[in-house]
This record gives sequence, C-alpha cells and structure tokens, in this order.
Amino acid sequence: MTYCVGIRVQQGLVFAADTRTSAAFDDVRIHSKMHVFEFPDRVLVLLSSGNLATTQTVLARLACDAENEASGLRSAKHLFEVAEHIGQTLVAAQQLVANNNSPNPVNVEATLVLGGQIRGEQPALYLIYPLGNWISASPETPYVQIGESKYGKPILDRIVRSATTLEDAARCAVVSLDSTARSNLSVGLPFDLAIVRTGELKIAQTLRLEADTPLYVEIRDTWSRKLEHAVHSLPRFAWETDAAKIKSA
Amino acid sequence: MTYCVGIRVQQGLVFAADTRTSAAFDDVRIHSKMHVFEFPDRVLVLLSSGNLATTQTVLARLACDAENEASGLRSAKHLFEVAEHIGQTLVAAQQLVANNNSPNPVNVEATLVLGGQIRGEQPALYLIYPLGNWISASPETPYVQIGESKYGKPILDRIVRSATTLEDAARCAVVSLDSTARSNLSVGLPFDLAIVRTGELKIAQTLRLEADTPLYVEIRDTWSRKLEHAVHSLPRFAWETDAAKIKSA
Repeated sequence: MTYCVGIRVQQGLVFAADTRTSAAFDDVRIHSKMHVFEFPDRVLVLLSSGNLATTQTVLARLACDAENEASGLRSAKHLFEVAEHIGQTLVAAQQLVANNNSPNPVNVEATLVLGGQIRGEQPALYLIYPLGNWISASPETPYVQIGESKYGKPILDRIVRSATTLEDAARCAVVSLDSTARSNLSVGLPFDLAIVRTGELKIAQTLRLEADTPLYVEIRDTWSRKLEHAVHSLPRFAWETDAAKIKSA
Repeated sequence: MTYCVGIRVQQGLVFAADTRTSAAFDDVRIHSKMHVFEFPDRVLVLLSSGNLATTQTVLARLACDAENEASGLRSAKHLFEVAEHIGQTLVAAQQLVANNNSPNPVNVEATLVLGGQIRGEQPALYLIYPLGNWISASPETPYVQIGESKYGKPILDRIVRSATTLEDAARCAVVSLDSTARSNLSVGLPFDLAIVRTGELKIAQTLRLEADTPLYVEIRDTWSRKLEHAVHSLPRFAWETDAAKIKSA
C-alpha cells in the first residue's frame, strides 16, 4: 500500500507521500514516491502508488521524455495534456506485462497524482487512473489522494479549502499522513513533502520527515495535545451541566 | 454499510451507532442498530452491522431469551459467555439461509459489538465475528468498531485511553461517527449514543442525535473550528520562521 495526497489551494500546491513499499509483510522497502520535473516554463510533480515495477517503468520513460523538448511532458500546452501523456505511458507500462500469464496473478496497475503549473495557466492537480483517464481536483474538493486514503481523509475534509494557506495545507497533509501511518502498517516513514507556489513554476520547498526529525516529532505531539484539548472543549452533555448545577447549588 | 463504535474506559462504557441501512443507493432506511437489555444483575448493549435480516433474526431470538431467566443471556456468569451465546445465535441465523441458493448471492453475515457489565465483574466489551468467535477490547486498544471503521479511527487512536472520562470518550465517539458519515453515504444520521457507568448495572444515559439536534450541531461546528485552530497552531516550517525573521529585521 501507499498513501499520497496532493492539495490545490489558491496559493499553490502541496504534495505529500509516504515512502514504504511492500510486496509482503516480510518484504518492505523504502522508495520515494514523489518525482519532480522542473523546466523553465513548467513544474510537474508526480506521486505514485500501486505496482512498483509499473511506476518505475513509467518514471524511467518519463525521465527519457524529459530530455526531449518535443515530448508530451515538455511540449504540451496544458497540464491536462501532460496528464493524458502520462496516462498513456502508464497504460503502456501495464500492457507490457499484461499477457505474461503467471500461476500467481499479480496486479500490475498503478495510480498516479500529477500536479504542477505550466506558464500561462493556473496550477492544476490530477488523479490519473490505471485506465489512463483522469479527474481533476476542484474548488469544492481541493485535494486528491491515492493508496490508503480513508484514515487521512476526515482532516482534509474538515480543514482544507481553496483559501487555506499553503503552509496550513502542508501541516494538514503531514497530519493526514501521520494518521494513516498509525493505522496501516504498509504506510510508513519517512514522509516526503513538496510545495509549489502559484506563479513560480518551480518547487518552492521540499522536506523529508523522518521519525526523529524534530519538526515531525513536534507536529505529531502538538497535534495529539491540541486534539485532546479540542475534544475536552466540545459542548457538555445536558447531564453534565445538570450535575454541575446541582454541585454548585 | 454501518458504523458503530464501543469504547471501554475506567469510568464505564460508551456505545455509538449510526442508523442508516441500505440495500442499495436507492433503498435506504433508518433502523436502530443499538439494542439494550437491562436486568437487575446485568446490563447488555448490542450494536449490529451487516445483513439486516440476520441481525433482526438474532435480535428477535435474544428478545425471547430475555424473557427466560435460564437463558444464556441472563444466566451466564461472565460476559464472555454471553458473547459466546450471542455468537452461536448469530451463526444459527446465518446458517438458516446459507443453503437457500439464489442466482444473486447475498452476504448474510453480520458482525456485532457486545458490551456491558454483570454483577461481580468489571465492564467488558467484545466484537463478535460472523463465525461466532470474539475479541475483547484491551487497555491498549480500548475500543471496538464494526462497519465502515477507517474514517473514524484516527480520532479514537489519538484520544481514547483507559483514563479518558466517559463524557470525553462519548464526545470522541460522536466526532468519530460524524467523520464517517461525511465520507461514506451509507453511514447516516440520526446517531444513537448510550453510556454505562462502571458498577451501575444499567444504562446511565441515552441520546439520539438528529441533524438539527442543537448539541450535535454545536459539537460539529465547534470541532471544525477547534481543528482549524489546532492545524494553525502546529509548529511552523523553517522557511516560515526565516521569512518572519527577514520581515522583522
């Protein structure tokens, strides 16, 4: 499994990904799932989940494309066209092995997130399915997730809006990853974080959070403390206030 | 789908359940999934998920048992024996229809939560599987969930400990249900809440929360506001403090 999330707010884009890949409980490794392409007129960030052989094939091919100015990656005028190009690359990588019948069927599908900005356009964010088709983040749902998406979704739903600051969105993404890694063993540290500011056409910040990175430790501890405080400050039940009235009477 | 959660803290037990049952998107109804049995020497609360015909069969049989002092429900000395009795009732209900082959296979399994207290014992909390076997909540994992459990799990993991007050645990349960209902259409209002205080051998409080119940509205709004505040109060990234230093210099 994997958990990656991309967020699009007015100020720009946030990308966050875990790094654990697992073929089985006893076959666990660390691979980055965040892949950055920067060119003078565009910045592209890809997050990957699913079959590792497939995503590495896609990445290897896209890295070749990146050297060719005429490739879909570099020549497309619109980000959705880049998403389609990557979608086709993904489908081709899956089809390469689709007919290699094995007695132990393996799911070779992968799912990707593509975000970025091309000069002349607003930043955009896409989820690319194994079929090669895509959906875009929207103002109402300003994020896309791949992999183990459920544990980390409520915090995104409650907090992230288009007007949320880039840094608050990034803090949300870290909490969302942390919640997921606590509940699904196949999602694990270190976490990769990247930020693209609207109009800059480059990565503004990247960060790798390890278990002992002070910022990560502090975010995790503060979050637990604040959440406890938040629960405790929720409205009282009627019988609590009644009991308090009786006591104070 | 369904979402129910039971929590066991030192002060007692919390039970919370949604009420939506759905055979399909266009076949949605409201049924209580919380079932209470009170006797002078014991209190039992059952939460149900899965096939509604199965859970109603189980409940109908347990209601008969409740009239008979010698039944497993009333005569068992230990709560785990009640769990086993209910587990056997569940298996029997499933087996009733197991061989009625249909061209459209239907999953007739159900999963239950049993919590309560029998005089002379501490309160206890069990998850009863379709096989009729069970697991117990533990001091390290003081809750059990059935149905759509993922969205509402992080808040429980971060907050609920054995020392948490009964009311804070109940507030957590409401937030956990609310998070789930936001993300899974098959989980829906109204929510049922019940509380058992250690040693009382009866239901201390029950509550039904509708969409317009002032307490529920207030909990939901306060939670979103507090969470936003919590995110905003998380540690700054290095580049934010650097930028602040430059500004103030």
